[in-house]
Amino acid sequence: MSRFLSKRYSELVPYVPGEQPADPSGVVKLNTNESPFPPSEAALFYAGGHARSYNLYSDPDANELCEVFAKTVGAERDQVLAGNGSDELLNFAFMAFCDDGRPALFPDITYGFYTVFASLNRVPQVRIPLADDFSLNVDDYINRKGTAYIANPNAPTGIALPPSEIEKIAAAKPDDIVVVDEAYADFGAQSCVPLTRKYGNLLVIMTFSKSRSMAGARLGFAIGNKALISDMNTIKYSINPYNVNSYTQALGIGTLLDGDYTKNCIADIITNREYTVKALRGLGFELTDSKANFLFARHPRMSGTKLYKKLAERKILVRHFGAERIDDYLRISIGSRSQMEKLIKALAEILVEENAGGGTR
Amino acid sequence: MSRFLSKRYSELVPYVPGEQPADPSGVVKLNTNESPFPPSEAALFYAGGHARSYNLYSDPDANELCEVFAKTVGAERDQVLAGNGSDELLNFAFMAFCDDGRPALFPDITYGFYTVFASLNRVPQVRIPLADDFSLNVDDYINRKGTAYIANPNAPTGIALPPSEIEKIAAAKPDDIVVVDEAYADFGAQSCVPLTRKYGNLLVIMTFSKSRSMAGARLGFAIGNKALISDMNTIKYSINPYNVNSYTQALGIGTLLDGDYTKNCIADIITNREYTVKALRGLGFELTDSKANFLFARHPRMSGTKLYKKLAERKILVRHFGAERIDDYLRISIGSRSQMEKLIKALAEILVEENAGGGTR
Repeated sequence: MSRFLSKRYSELVPYVPGEQPADPSGVVKLNTNESPFPPSEAALFYAGGHARSYNLYSDPDANELCEVFAKTVGAERDQVLAGNGSDELLNFAFMAFCDDGRPALFPDITYGFYTVFASLNRVPQVRIPLADDFSLNVDDYINRKGTAYIANPNAPTGIALPPSEIEKIAAAKPDDIVVVDEAYADFGAQSCVPLTRKYGNLLVIMTFSKSRSMAGARLGFAIGNKALISDMNTIKYSINPYNVNSYTQALGIGTLLDGDYTKNCIADIITNREYTVKALRGLGFELTDSKANFLFARHPRMSGTKLYKKLAERKILVRHFGAERIDDYLRISIGSRSQMEKLIKALAEILVEENAGGGTR
Repeated sequence: MSRFLSKRYSELVPYVPGEQPADPSGVVKLNTNESPFPPSEAALFYAGGHARSYNLYSDPDANELCEVFAKTVGAERDQVLAGNGSDELLNFAFMAFCDDGRPALFPDITYGFYTVFASLNRVPQVRIPLADDFSLNVDDYINRKGTAYIANPNAPTGIALPPSEIEKIAAAKPDDIVVVDEAYADFGAQSCVPLTRKYGNLLVIMTFSKSRSMAGARLGFAIGNKALISDMNTIKYSINPYNVNSYTQALGIGTLLDGDYTKNCIADIITNREYTVKALRGLGFELTDSKANFLFARHPRMSGTKLYKKLAERKILVRHFGAERIDDYLRISIGSRSQMEKLIKALAEILVEENAGGGTR
């Protein structure tokens, strides 16, 4: 920190993204919930055809992209806004819809960026404990004034709520916004997008980083009542009007047009998830009921720290948060079948070694 | 505005980007200071080769890109930070280096986004009038407490200060930051980057949107003392760690490796600028001494509004700000030679028509 940094931010603790190996060759990377599949060839071809016009500014409204996206999710054009990844849009939602009188409400165990966004925007935050089984009780949000940020499925637990539960919050508190972060919804949860037509206080955030294989291209969407989207646009046009670059707009359109590819990728991930769940259970792991493209698992005989290290020694990267309540858990992204087989083989070896050595936690 | 928007932002007036024609065919677009030349073929080829890995997150530090950039501008790696366009980095600089005790200082006539960034971050702003000839007197900044934002060359006037003048501010006020926005410096001004080694309170912002033909790909840089860059990173990692997508990182590297292409584009722009200056003077226009890729011009016999409209009728887009002191001026981006010839031909016709009709301002 320099002596020049504003005191407003002197206590700020930035988000720490999952490790990116400097040399990814030979690494089984299961730590940042990316898709193991490249973007669709058709989408890449479509995007490549647009490259010669990059001397001109991108469309700040991303109109063509937003039109195709709105149709895909069953929304109107004026109900959607594109962002440079969903993180950017989540920050806009913290800026627009929280303040001293409206704290940010979110679970104690959830996406780690929510607490950073609250600190960054200097709005009060209430971290509401999940139950012992990591389930979320919507009454905790109904009975508190404030803007709710609910990842559905939740991260890193993978547990999903039915939209009817989230609807209860929106219906009970018409003067408070409910933000539903559906980063992982495509892998088995139900979307709240249809509810945005009924509730003017419901905002859904989506990302193309997971199910749509575009983490490196950065694309997210906000879907909600047009008045909320207009507020989000007020923020966007005061920060970075040309937030989504031309390549990403084109790749997003190409990806949406090739919807079958996305469907097939999702089906493969779900198949690989089911394979991995069975194999992990076979090795004695305990797992939450994840509807996401990751699993949340612990082993009764080995600590999360030790498992993480032993896997890293074998060039298998998973995410270990080292935080209260979840210190023994690993979050394991679902990759390709061969990546998951390597993981299972490595874990089996680690557990055998541990048993032979009579190791302790 | 919805009833949910935080009162903190209820007065916010967003930035209005230059008009983007829905159908650009047949339009001579000289209104947003883009390069008329596409990105280099070598750079596009280089970037295209990276597309299949876009399912993985981009490098949040943009390390390879920052290393190549640092070498190009003669800085160390830890002195530079990449952004999703320079607007994002300017906002980081308003967040990090302004607060109640340190107002933002900038000219009354300058890049229109500075006042938006100050409002957005709710920091006081002092708009210091330029002289009648639009020149900037550094004493105005030396004698005031606050963080100076100086576009050099200035926009929309195009007038450049020598680095020795800006150095006076940094030297006189070691406890205040000076931010130099060099968006247009490549077209004939001298860069303040060498001064960042000497002054820990000097931050330079650059963009690839102008001289490097990458407006649609979104890439900017901040260059300064490593402690300042560390502050900027604190903000970045609290807003959007993966701010620069993989394609843009690759295209940026490719563009830097093909430096001759950029040099040739800049030389062409300067040649076209000189041609246009002479032609406009021949038509009776008065111009500032622009060192940028645009001209700032007015005609003693026709209002800016009228000239803008008459050009727009002929599908030639220039920028007219309609603001105090500069209402009679047009800001005209320098395009290709044929675009500039079309502009001159159109202006000649407009002036002849006006004269024939005995029109008034």
